[in-house]
Amino acid sequence: MNPPPRELLSINTATVRKQWGLSEIIAGCARRGIRQISPWRDQVAAVGLKETAQRLRDAGVRLSGYCRGGMFPALDRAGRKAALDDNKRAVDEALMLEAPCLVLVVGGLPKDAGGRIASKDLPGARAMVRDGIGELLEHARPAGMPLAIEPLHPMYAADRACVNTMAHANDLCDELSPGANAGLGIAVDVYHVWWDPDLEREIERAGGYSGRLMAFHLCDWLVPTADLLLDRGMMGDGVIDLPLIRSWMEAAGYRGPHEVEIFSERNWWKRDPDEVLATCVARHQTVC
Amino acid sequence: MNPPPRELLSINTATVRKQWGLSEIIAGCARRGIRQISPWRDQVAAVGLKETAQRLRDAGVRLSGYCRGGMFPALDRAGRKAALDDNKRAVDEALMLEAPCLVLVVGGLPKDAGGRIASKDLPGARAMVRDGIGELLEHARPAGMPLAIEPLHPMYAADRACVNTMAHANDLCDELSPGANAGLGIAVDVYHVWWDPDLEREIERAGGYSGRLMAFHLCDWLVPTADLLLDRGMMGDGVIDLPLIRSWMEAAGYRGPHEVEIFSERNWWKRDPDEVLATCVARHQTVC
Repeated sequence: MNPPPRELLSINTATVRKQWGLSEIIAGCARRGIRQISPWRDQVAAVGLKETAQRLRDAGVRLSGYCRGGMFPALDRAGRKAALDDNKRAVDEALMLEAPCLVLVVGGLPKDAGGRIASKDLPGARAMVRDGIGELLEHARPAGMPLAIEPLHPMYAADRACVNTMAHANDLCDELSPGANAGLGIAVDVYHVWWDPDLEREIERAGGYSGRLMAFHLCDWLVPTADLLLDRGMMGDGVIDLPLIRSWMEAAGYRGPHEVEIFSERNWWKRDPDEVLATCVARHQTVC
Repeated sequence: MNPPPRELLSINTATVRKQWGLSEIIAGCARRGIRQISPWRDQVAAVGLKETAQRLRDAGVRLSGYCRGGMFPALDRAGRKAALDDNKRAVDEALMLEAPCLVLVVGGLPKDAGGRIASKDLPGARAMVRDGIGELLEHARPAGMPLAIEPLHPMYAADRACVNTMAHANDLCDELSPGANAGLGIAVDVYHVWWDPDLEREIERAGGYSGRLMAFHLCDWLVPTADLLLDRGMMGDGVIDLPLIRSWMEAAGYRGPHEVEIFSERNWWKRDPDEVLATCVARHQTVC
């Protein structure tokens, strides 16, 4: 395959979050010709929403997505209402920052006030996710902010997201917002879905609806993986056939950003962030 | 739900492997009235095959399965032939021990001589698994040894097993050995499949063929999970709705053993093995 267009590269700001604040990330990306980022809400809050918007404009950097909404399940109605309200605020922030979509990490089993999982009802949690996305759509759709469901790896089903396959995400889109350009879609992160034997078919299925494939996230799966959350690999250092999955995305009509998102406690978070960005740029051209 | 019949409890010998050799495990289980175990090949080899068979007879303990065959993918034809030959020996050992099935952990991406993953071709690995099981069936079926495909959690797709869902295992059965009592089936381990939104449907699908549901393995998923391989939980200590999954197995016609398999470096492998067995017996009655 040909290397991807350089201008598609985006940096999810978690990739250098241990080294840099958001203002430094925006400036660092701009210096290197990276014109897209996907920031996290806490990073934006630390700088301030208006200030962030201004810095993005000044630097000529735009968003490839906004991280993140979701976390819908809760033990009681008040908890679910609080989650919905917080999601509405996330939509409003995404609008202010002119993000193309708000990424949803939908949440896992309901937790108690201490953050401990307090239910084993996985079908029930999935119903809360469906209902939560449905309610959020009533706010996001008229406001013009697309919502991107991110299926997470099954190892996060309990504590982060109980939508764990592309098929499940496609089913939710079909149920809640069918058709093309319907304001609900999918963020495809290779780390979460690379193992799925139905991946090609479900990417193709999503591609059948214009606007459903909303994001494409890159990193790599390391063997061995030392930590369930914080040991992602740089593209090319692991076992994922990245060009193959990109070819499926392109065959399905996706032409959007390639967003690098690496949580790496033992490696990339310890390095010079300029070197991390340079590596992202190089690997994007050579192994993706 | 009613507690399960006590006599269905089986102990996978990995559960106390750090504390005891196989002879002690057999004796320890017999003392506690546990009449079924599932031993690993290295443990059997350490005691000797005939000696193991004799000790099982003397103790009145039988097998609920034999661990394990599989690991089919290899970089070249010679490697795949070696894997097949080793699998045939595993079948012969299982016959000697009168196991009801040989459990298959099918293998992930092909590795080089140093044990490092040397391919990113996941569809290719899956084809090798299909071909390997097909060839092994030619040996196992006439010999009368059922083969049980164990779908492993997707987090093991690269290095242990690239069959990661019940649907994939059912598809392999349909392709390689369709129909009832066909000598090829599935080992359902809650740890690997609890997250799957299609689990109930795929258990029901397997149950449609008498003899396809060959094993049912119990443990629990801990939050947080500290290690991808060696941090399984005792039943009741995690987030899996065990009675719900048992109800699906029973609705599908499964009446076989409930095999406890816990790899636990930080907890159960450090405890008195008699206490571990007592806990298995108690939890089987109270939370499964």
